[in-house]
Amino acid sequence: MKISIERGTLLKAVSQAQSVVERRNTIPILANVLIEAEGDSVQFRATDLDIEVVDKAPAQVERAGATTVAATTLHEIVRKLPDGALVTLTADSATGRLTVDAGRSNFSLATLPREDFPVMASSEYQSNFTAPAAVLRRLFDKSKFAISTEETRYYLNGVYLHVTDADGGKVLRAVATDGHRLARIDAELPAGSADMPGVIVPRKTVGELRKLLDDDEMDIAVSVSETKVRFATPDITLTSKVIDGTFPDYTRVIPQGNTRRLEVDASEFAQAVDRVATVSSERSRAVKLQLEEDRLILSVNAPDSGAAEEELAVAYGDERLEIGFNAKYLLEIASQVDRENAVFMFNSAGDPTLMREGNDQSAVYVVMPMRV
Amino acid sequence: MKISIERGTLLKAVSQAQSVVERRNTIPILANVLIEAEGDSVQFRATDLDIEVVDKAPAQVERAGATTVAATTLHEIVRKLPDGALVTLTADSATGRLTVDAGRSNFSLATLPREDFPVMASSEYQSNFTAPAAVLRRLFDKSKFAISTEETRYYLNGVYLHVTDADGGKVLRAVATDGHRLARIDAELPAGSADMPGVIVPRKTVGELRKLLDDDEMDIAVSVSETKVRFATPDITLTSKVIDGTFPDYTRVIPQGNTRRLEVDASEFAQAVDRVATVSSERSRAVKLQLEEDRLILSVNAPDSGAAEEELAVAYGDERLEIGFNAKYLLEIASQVDRENAVFMFNSAGDPTLMREGNDQSAVYVVMPMRV
Repeated sequence: MKISIERGTLLKAVSQAQSVVERRNTIPILANVLIEAEGDSVQFRATDLDIEVVDKAPAQVERAGATTVAATTLHEIVRKLPDGALVTLTADSATGRLTVDAGRSNFSLATLPREDFPVMASSEYQSNFTAPAAVLRRLFDKSKFAISTEETRYYLNGVYLHVTDADGGKVLRAVATDGHRLARIDAELPAGSADMPGVIVPRKTVGELRKLLDDDEMDIAVSVSETKVRFATPDITLTSKVIDGTFPDYTRVIPQGNTRRLEVDASEFAQAVDRVATVSSERSRAVKLQLEEDRLILSVNAPDSGAAEEELAVAYGDERLEIGFNAKYLLEIASQVDRENAVFMFNSAGDPTLMREGNDQSAVYVVMPMRV
Repeated sequence: MKISIERGTLLKAVSQAQSVVERRNTIPILANVLIEAEGDSVQFRATDLDIEVVDKAPAQVERAGATTVAATTLHEIVRKLPDGALVTLTADSATGRLTVDAGRSNFSLATLPREDFPVMASSEYQSNFTAPAAVLRRLFDKSKFAISTEETRYYLNGVYLHVTDADGGKVLRAVATDGHRLARIDAELPAGSADMPGVIVPRKTVGELRKLLDDDEMDIAVSVSETKVRFATPDITLTSKVIDGTFPDYTRVIPQGNTRRLEVDASEFAQAVDRVATVSSERSRAVKLQLEEDRLILSVNAPDSGAAEEELAVAYGDERLEIGFNAKYLLEIASQVDRENAVFMFNSAGDPTLMREGNDQSAVYVVMPMRV
């Protein structure tokens, strides 16, 4: 194999691939990236056995072929090369080395045989459709904060992406929860996705996928089966196993009968919560919300360090209510609101509370109260 | 005590004070800042028993007095208050609380008695002089990277600031070393400093002092005794114990007879060192320098991962030389050079190497080679 490629193009392709590689690997080949050159392009493939990313870039291929080399080392080298440099990668099968030449720098890297690289088996996908990057980005960005990190509840360690019925007909929905809070985000159903099986997309996949979704104008090809999900742009294909488990019936958790309605400027609210939480001890960051007619009093009482109170002018017309929440959870859901006021729907001090942006039902958050 | 103070002014004063406070404290009072209000100003004092910082700010003092309160909590609160807010601090001796009021936020913080706060004993200073902030900044900024972190060699855990003879007469000199590299920085002797005793300024003091030295135009009042050093601006006074030990005779370490002269663009050199070091294993980051007529070849050979080589055009006219260095040390000294080329003076592959900026003798670095 011998190819020449512009440093910026190479860096972009290698960056995406190497980020999938786990830093600590007991299986040496998993630290490597598989480089395959043919025709007028080169492919970089990396995997952690659960996720595989393939990145394609145009290159001048002098001699087709393939090899594998340490992903982080290659990435570091390319990153440190001067911008605009022309980089030549040459695999020497006699020495088992890959040389990287650019200007007056040259590197010789240990390789492992391409045959040892575990390429993910190709699958039949039941559903294939395209969705705008902006739609997928919103679904995952607004839900991922609620993904559980408890490994024992592995079926909550991802975002549940599925098709379901909502008020206005079928929607594509992303749900994540850790038992303390829940995010439910809906998007218009992309054409051809109606028969998509529901899948739990793992946390790491959500993170890697995010890098494909920066360009608003990009259409993403999505393929879904019972066991795998694939997202592809013309250059990058990200394939991931999905979590083998059943996502709990979240609909029962979303309160339907909450009638006490509080409307508040989300940013003022978040700042006030953040301020009063300053005095609370690290572990139990409980904030008390005291609701009276058009007034919200936020308070924290930490016997050791002190107390804090702040009043906000809000829209509230129901009977008085005192309810406590984890400050972190309130801050996280308040930060999801970007256009309108945050609307909270309460029932009692012991019941889950619902939050949404204005009257927009397409992004709904639930947070469990805590005793204060 | 009752005072009103603008939030920005308060934040600046509290920031500087709280940064001295150690995060983990077994003595509760050391987590607190002492607030003393009198006349038309307020003072914030914090200490870790080795360093004391006193920060003075204008305030409207309604009732003079003093109290102590958790430094980080106060700092966090003030940081989160909206810009431009007027903050009122009121100490209530009956409840033992300090209230912090700003707009519709109010906080009530636990206090400890001012009597418990360990104020550093005042000292006689043998030497008092002023020096421009820019001069002190250069002395410490260019030397601090070489401070040792080995606690057993406590006398190397700081910068040795002293007056000594140089070619052009007496100078104010900063020296730091960890046994592997050394920095020796000279500055013009400030008027009145000739009788200053040599002191080892501890690493943490160097870090805290740095915050006083940002303003080029500021004159810093410096006071030095055998046991303490004090740096003061009109608003801030930083007093620190010095390290009780003898700084080794560094002059013997600085090679005088090195004759092989290499001149190289410091930034090109640093980038090349950084690139070739990519392939080396984390622990022994050895880079080999191979010097030939007007050529420098940098190389790294790491049996496991690979090899790297880069050639630079340099000015070198002496006989061939091969010498190895720790890549990190080379990068650190090369990054001290900002105006001219880096000049290296070598002797043999086993001898300390000297580096300076052009022909400037006022900043000299020594680095020990390593076997490659």
